[in-house]
Amino acid sequence: MAIKIYGGAKSTCTGRVLITLFEKEVDYELVEIDLSKGEHKSPEFLKHQPFGQIPYVVHEGLELYESRAIARSVAEWYAKQGSALYGSTAHEKAQVEQWLEVEAQNYNPAISSLVFQLVFAPWFGKTTDEAVVAAQTAKLESVLDIYEKRLSEKKYLAGDFFSLADLSHITYSYYFIKIAGKGAIYDSRPHVKAWIDGIFARPSTQKWLKLAGFAQ
Amino acid sequence: MAIKIYGGAKSTCTGRVLITLFEKEVDYELVEIDLSKGEHKSPEFLKHQPFGQIPYVVHEGLELYESRAIARSVAEWYAKQGSALYGSTAHEKAQVEQWLEVEAQNYNPAISSLVFQLVFAPWFGKTTDEAVVAAQTAKLESVLDIYEKRLSEKKYLAGDFFSLADLSHITYSYYFIKIAGKGAIYDSRPHVKAWIDGIFARPSTQKWLKLAGFAQ
Ligand SMILES: N[C@@H](CCC(=O)N[C@@H](CS)C(=O)NCC(=O)O)C(=O)O
Ligand SMILES: N[C@@H](CCC(=O)N[C@@H](CS)C(=O)NCC(=O)O)C(=O)O
Repeated sequence: MAIKIYGGAKSTCTGRVLITLFEKEVDYELVEIDLSKGEHKSPEFLKHQPFGQIPYVVHEGLELYESRAIARSVAEWYAKQGSALYGSTAHEKAQVEQWLEVEAQNYNPAISSLVFQLVFAPWFGKTTDEAVVAAQTAKLESVLDIYEKRLSEKKYLAGDFFSLADLSHITYSYYFIKIAGKGAIYDSRPHVKAWIDGIFARPSTQKWLKLAGFAQ
Repeated sequence: MAIKIYGGAKSTCTGRVLITLFEKEVDYELVEIDLSKGEHKSPEFLKHQPFGQIPYVVHEGLELYESRAIARSVAEWYAKQGSALYGSTAHEKAQVEQWLEVEAQNYNPAISSLVFQLVFAPWFGKTTDEAVVAAQTAKLESVLDIYEKRLSEKKYLAGDFFSLADLSHITYSYYFIKIAGKGAIYDSRPHVKAWIDGIFARPSTQKWLKLAGFAQ
């Protein structure tokens, strides 16, 4: 196996890594960590990921965690195969890094909080905090306004090529739009809507959805 | 000029970029954006950085924002000069990416909130929210516990070499420890203490401190 992943097929952060592996056509083995049994907080797990979060991977003797660091590293290690997730020039790569940071710093804080409130809280028998939902929806909408403008000029975030930056949005967006049923704020922005439909339709996303049990 | 930065010498995010340029021995020009006059929310500024935040840079015709994306790009563009901020092997680079993400995802949310409460709120005539300070200090301490263990095994976060991951911690840590006077939670962790003293003592940090008016 080229890479061994300790994580969960349904998990958004593991999904980011899996979709990267699919795009890069890399062989992998997934070892399921059962969050409901607290396996990610066991002393054994914490030796590998001290923050007690999935996923981490093992690749040629190297252990690595943080999903975006894993995704970046896979894109570099397998630069010559699969999709060119960093583009093809130094300037394109810099733009990928910029939009990957926008995802991590601006998009993710809002959408991960929303998915927690709207999906995970009910799953774990907690109540949804509607004030948080309202505040974070407003934040997400202001980010989507910036995306709408960008995507009216370029087909994808970093330019006219699908990249790690777009990829990094897929899993949380899927939970928010398809599982929480909150697609309206995307539908009302035509370029965002076309972009999200496009990245959801990729074979790599479809493969993740099957593995996670969300599609057949 | 190799690179033009639109930002503020005192700003933590601009500081991250400046220290990277100093480590890589890259010529630059700094154009001061006056946050107190709201220059970062002007229509002209928003054309370059749509989120209305400093810094952004211009390098060989490319405009780029997000401080960690700029730092990564500078480290790649100038790979052959100055400090080897990504280490010297593919495995070292992956470790740098991991700890850079730990900084962005775990360390920064806590410390940036603390610096806002303890330094910027008073500067702007707002009151410090002590409940936030208590909660975020607890979070920061749990991150520092993980750093203490790591730094008892390796001299720096990504290994036995100074990297972009360590560098990314400098500016907010300086504000928290030296300006807010909250060094005690570092002093009580000997390996964290030695690490932070070491990164503060670097010529690149000292050069930033002079430029920001914090040192002579
Ligand atoms: N920044 C980390 C976050 C990892 C993360 O939040 N993992 C979630 C699943 S998506 C998890 O393990 N949650 C359980 C917990 O935090 O206790 C990454 O991107 O890998
Ligand atoms: N993720 C951005 C954050 C930039 C940021 O927060 N900049 C601050 C100064 S350190 C700023 O412009 N604050 C003013 C504002 O947000 O209105 C980066 O790393 O560049």
